[in-house]
Amino acid sequence: MKNAGRGFASDNNAGAHPSVIEAVAGANVGHVPAYGRDRWTARAVELLKREFGADAEALLVYGGTGANVVSLSALLSPWQAVICPAGAHINVDECGAPERFTGCKLLPVVTPDGKLRPGDLAAALSRLGDQHAAQPAVVSISEASEMGTVYSPAEIRALADAAHARGLALHVDGARLANAAVSLDTSLASLTAEAGVDLLSFGGTKNGLLGAEAVISFSGRGSELVFVRKQGAQLSSKMRFLAAQFIALLESGLWRANAANANAMARRLAAGVERLPRIRLTQPVQANAVFATLPPEWIPRVQARYPFYVWNEATFEVRWMCSWDTTAEDVDEFVAAIGEVAR
Amino acid sequence: MKNAGRGFASDNNAGAHPSVIEAVAGANVGHVPAYGRDRWTARAVELLKREFGADAEALLVYGGTGANVVSLSALLSPWQAVICPAGAHINVDECGAPERFTGCKLLPVVTPDGKLRPGDLAAALSRLGDQHAAQPAVVSISEASEMGTVYSPAEIRALADAAHARGLALHVDGARLANAAVSLDTSLASLTAEAGVDLLSFGGTKNGLLGAEAVISFSGRGSELVFVRKQGAQLSSKMRFLAAQFIALLESGLWRANAANANAMARRLAAGVERLPRIRLTQPVQANAVFATLPPEWIPRVQARYPFYVWNEATFEVRWMCSWDTTAEDVDEFVAAIGEVAR
Amino acid sequence: MKNAGRGFASDNNAGAHPSVIEAVAGANVGHVPAYGRDRWTARAVELLKREFGADAEALLVYGGTGANVVSLSALLSPWQAVICPAGAHINVDECGAPERFTGCKLLPVVTPDGKLRPGDLAAALSRLGDQHAAQPAVVSISEASEMGTVYSPAEIRALADAAHARGLALHVDGARLANAAVSLDTSLASLTAEAGVDLLSFGGTKNGLLGAEAVISFSGRGSELVFVRKQGAQLSSKMRFLAAQFIALLESGLWRANAANANAMARRLAAGVERLPRIRLTQPVQANAVFATLPPEWIPRVQARYPFYVWNEATFEVRWMCSWDTTAEDVDEFVAAIGEVAR
Amino acid sequence: MKNAGRGFASDNNAGAHPSVIEAVAGANVGHVPAYGRDRWTARAVELLKREFGADAEALLVYGGTGANVVSLSALLSPWQAVICPAGAHINVDECGAPERFTGCKLLPVVTPDGKLRPGDLAAALSRLGDQHAAQPAVVSISEASEMGTVYSPAEIRALADAAHARGLALHVDGARLANAAVSLDTSLASLTAEAGVDLLSFGGTKNGLLGAEAVISFSGRGSELVFVRKQGAQLSSKMRFLAAQFIALLESGLWRANAANANAMARRLAAGVERLPRIRLTQPVQANAVFATLPPEWIPRVQARYPFYVWNEATFEVRWMCSWDTTAEDVDEFVAAIGEVAR
Repeated sequence: MKNAGRGFASDNNAGAHPSVIEAVAGANVGHVPAYGRDRWTARAVELLKREFGADAEALLVYGGTGANVVSLSALLSPWQAVICPAGAHINVDECGAPERFTGCKLLPVVTPDGKLRPGDLAAALSRLGDQHAAQPAVVSISEASEMGTVYSPAEIRALADAAHARGLALHVDGARLANAAVSLDTSLASLTAEAGVDLLSFGGTKNGLLGAEAVISFSGRGSELVFVRKQGAQLSSKMRFLAAQFIALLESGLWRANAANANAMARRLAAGVERLPRIRLTQPVQANAVFATLPPEWIPRVQARYPFYVWNEATFEVRWMCSWDTTAEDVDEFVAAIGEVAR
Repeated sequence: MKNAGRGFASDNNAGAHPSVIEAVAGANVGHVPAYGRDRWTARAVELLKREFGADAEALLVYGGTGANVVSLSALLSPWQAVICPAGAHINVDECGAPERFTGCKLLPVVTPDGKLRPGDLAAALSRLGDQHAAQPAVVSISEASEMGTVYSPAEIRALADAAHARGLALHVDGARLANAAVSLDTSLASLTAEAGVDLLSFGGTKNGLLGAEAVISFSGRGSELVFVRKQGAQLSSKMRFLAAQFIALLESGLWRANAANANAMARRLAAGVERLPRIRLTQPVQANAVFATLPPEWIPRVQARYPFYVWNEATFEVRWMCSWDTTAEDVDEFVAAIGEVAR
Repeated sequence: MKNAGRGFASDNNAGAHPSVIEAVAGANVGHVPAYGRDRWTARAVELLKREFGADAEALLVYGGTGANVVSLSALLSPWQAVICPAGAHINVDECGAPERFTGCKLLPVVTPDGKLRPGDLAAALSRLGDQHAAQPAVVSISEASEMGTVYSPAEIRALADAAHARGLALHVDGARLANAAVSLDTSLASLTAEAGVDLLSFGGTKNGLLGAEAVISFSGRGSELVFVRKQGAQLSSKMRFLAAQFIALLESGLWRANAANANAMARRLAAGVERLPRIRLTQPVQANAVFATLPPEWIPRVQARYPFYVWNEATFEVRWMCSWDTTAEDVDEFVAAIGEVAR
Repeated sequence: MKNAGRGFASDNNAGAHPSVIEAVAGANVGHVPAYGRDRWTARAVELLKREFGADAEALLVYGGTGANVVSLSALLSPWQAVICPAGAHINVDECGAPERFTGCKLLPVVTPDGKLRPGDLAAALSRLGDQHAAQPAVVSISEASEMGTVYSPAEIRALADAAHARGLALHVDGARLANAAVSLDTSLASLTAEAGVDLLSFGGTKNGLLGAEAVISFSGRGSELVFVRKQGAQLSSKMRFLAAQFIALLESGLWRANAANANAMARRLAAGVERLPRIRLTQPVQANAVFATLPPEWIPRVQARYPFYVWNEATFEVRWMCSWDTTAEDVDEFVAAIGEVAR
């Protein structure tokens, strides 16, 4: 295993940007009101509104699963259901937290690229009004998707329109929303507020924070959300330290720089491995992930030096993630290491 | 309001000890496996075992409510119930998180000093076996209690024995366990592992961390707890940053120093206000809280300079909290400020 | 124990009125659409609207706990709370079903006669808006109460007004609503629709049915209720057999006759035991229950012939229930039996 | 629509066998202890043990969804999951009741004939031990399946062995277990107790009862089940009337006769339509269901006389159900009616 360096297993393996640590240290001054009634939280909310629009309501939470369950719970009654891609984080990587916290059913749809399209809603919607079926009330997508693909603003708008036409809301798991916005060279608002999104889990952790996420509401549910957050065990007592992280991320464009680097490194990695024989990219590289298939016998040999996940055990599809701190040298060394195995 | 300084409203209003910030910064080196498979987490668990015994299993979580719901859930089936003091944090300050996450009922017992005694269990236990009643399965106490009082090891043992005799488990909300241990001049283990406690929420945040708590199991439920933690949205991806905080707290006795200071300041404050006319202490000052009644008309005048909570609106009982960073000068100025109002 | 006859332990120990059995047998003709799309259900709903008003929406369910959890769930989000008397059936006799199904907290208020009054809401309401507290959203009362007492229409209206003024809804557990209406010589609507009630669990089982209850909504939640009923496992497939019972109860005033008999027998019983020495009635006898204290040593001797519940083990308060089928002879024999013990 | 007769839409559209009504009427004698402490319930449990084995524990409940959620809840902690066929009743026809009541996730597997096989478990089992995934703990199958197919005792044993080998339990939704047993000419025990089943929902309603089901435990969970039943709002107060139905069903073999008739009529129907042009049976007819495809334009014309469900809107696959009371004449008339459309 590569010693103490930077790998490609997960963007959660990276640390925090130094300016995030500085911001936390800078907020460590005396006593301030707990639970968010402090000036750092006020400033973070102000900055989130700058990105997402004046009508956005923002609450800080600890983690991504927390952001998702709080968001979904604000949109759902327990007899309702969520339509989502089968590979959605909420469906496969949250240990059933959405079901337990909301009481709702997830209605997964198999999609080849991790993205949902309006036509994918039909089967679930056919049971609207049928008392025997959990009633679809939310469409949830991940932007960027878990497969490293990205929805354009128009694609999100089409989903929002399709959802709203049948009385459903649109939730976005934006753990990597920054990567999507940079990939599309657009604003965070264009992918959310302006595209008809109702509620957003906005990720900070994967983009260089120590650990902080935000729930952003575009449809006036803020007054309920504070209770859902507390009941969901996502209310930080010393909230200034979550807020300071977001201030560092948002105040001077760090979110964009971090995501831009991660995306660029993913493209560099894709370009590098594409030149190698017997490796095939399986998804367009639109954010900070590279999905590829390679000869099964190579996998353990590469993993011995660089740990990473086999995404699909049946097809030997692997996932390589780049991070805010991945360097060109890291990528080139990794490609070289794969190249050695390939020889 | 006292500007930018240290007040007496809540030990959550204090910041973090500087060495905690340093430890977090020190852990910010390169990539490490996410979700707790890193060396900081291993070290933090090792240090927690040093305090709580080799058989203890420890998991880090984000916050106190999270620690409580994860702990309780590991001990409970949804048709069961928790006997607790009526003023318990789980009963009055967690927005119903325990009920929602566990499905269980809380059976509150009114107690004058926030402490539960074996005889308080009788009413709830009388319905064991009755299919119409949620079945008591856990006794939950706070050490130190929400009223600033402290259970001796013998008192905890007596509750554990009474609980175990009827098949119930004993849970301790130890958000201020450090304050209790210092107050009693004893070890953390003597109040938990050695006193028959089954599961513990061990607080770090109120004792000088940025925000980190631990769930400590003394009865072999660790293998289930990892799933409960994730489902409870309490699994930090970049866990090294929670772990580093605990390392700072535990490695060289900071937990004891911080709690000792908070307790000493509470005693100093109690001694100070006791000398003032018309102020009456309502609870023994055994940890870092001072409860007192004072003339109602004084309250807003003191609050104008030092915000604090009126604990009981009916009796004009107020709560003043000291923190790890409260200084003798802070206390003396506060007592002087009350004294001015008293004149 | 009195052999094969009629006792005073519970109105659930009685069987069904013969005309209810006849109605069920009469509905057993050929195939009809399942799940309530049959003519018996349509007729039962029509009759329920006749009693409760044209705006009432009615759904049939299996049992009383089912009616309560479905009703409450339609009124509550999981971060909310229910204010109820401490002795409410939902609080002490439903094995925590309301908490598990709704995720909500119950906020019990101790009351001497099982009845809640507007002033009893104050403590719970003081935390409206506080993110740390489950938010009161429903006031739930039982009419008649579990102590055999009855709210007048004006008392219910006062509670409804107090609840509505703060944004809360009023739920009535009407397992014995018929007994209350007869006691007050009033209509079912006057105690519900006309008194500001939002949602009602209307009991049939204790008043002579085999087993059937109804959820009656006065505030337009019917469209949601059908899903809550199914998710709450309260949707009968062969619903005509629940409906036929309600038709028998409502079509020709059986509900009133049955309740009138039970109430009259309770008054006869009260009058009978009041003449005995050392027996004291502890509650006004307003419905079909008699609460009394008697010398502790008498209790097992009477129970040996007539089983009944000791309601309060501390005060030796017992509960005797009369049923739709209790006869004057039954009462007189029971009083005589107590009298023999009293001698 | 065929007037007041017997159709083929659902076995829930049938009424109750006359002897079931008689049994209910016969139990309507005087007062007996409520909630199952009566002699009818004792007798029903005795008869259930006669069918399922002396070690079986049996509890009566109201309905099929109730039986399923109570059963599953007794086997599951909320962070666990249930592997089931995608078309399972628990997955598609219970309005999310299992998720809400248990907090657990369902892991549906697409299968062509509604039956699950040991190899179908692999994908879900691959995440055992992964803290990010809800942990599979139960395999749930329906016997007979929702597609009218039947598992042999050996097939059930194979699933039980595969489940037990990985620490999972096997649950059977036996809403139509009687039809399966008759189809296989075997005992109820051979498909459950003797095949390794852990917990069973045993249906009575579809087989000629007014409405009653049983939860049968083969692994000693009876003491917990009573609380789960009450919390699940499935405890009937006048339980003798559920019990009397089961006595009628079990005492003299009515369950077998009813199921035998329904199965024979399904075979007759299959044979009849098989002779018609352009109709294709899509599933083996092993219980009381016939699945077939027919020309889309025929469907509304047949439905105009005989309502039934289109099971799969995409393939024009329809479901016809036979019941305990279906006659040969009914079948022949129905076949003739289809034949008229076919001409």
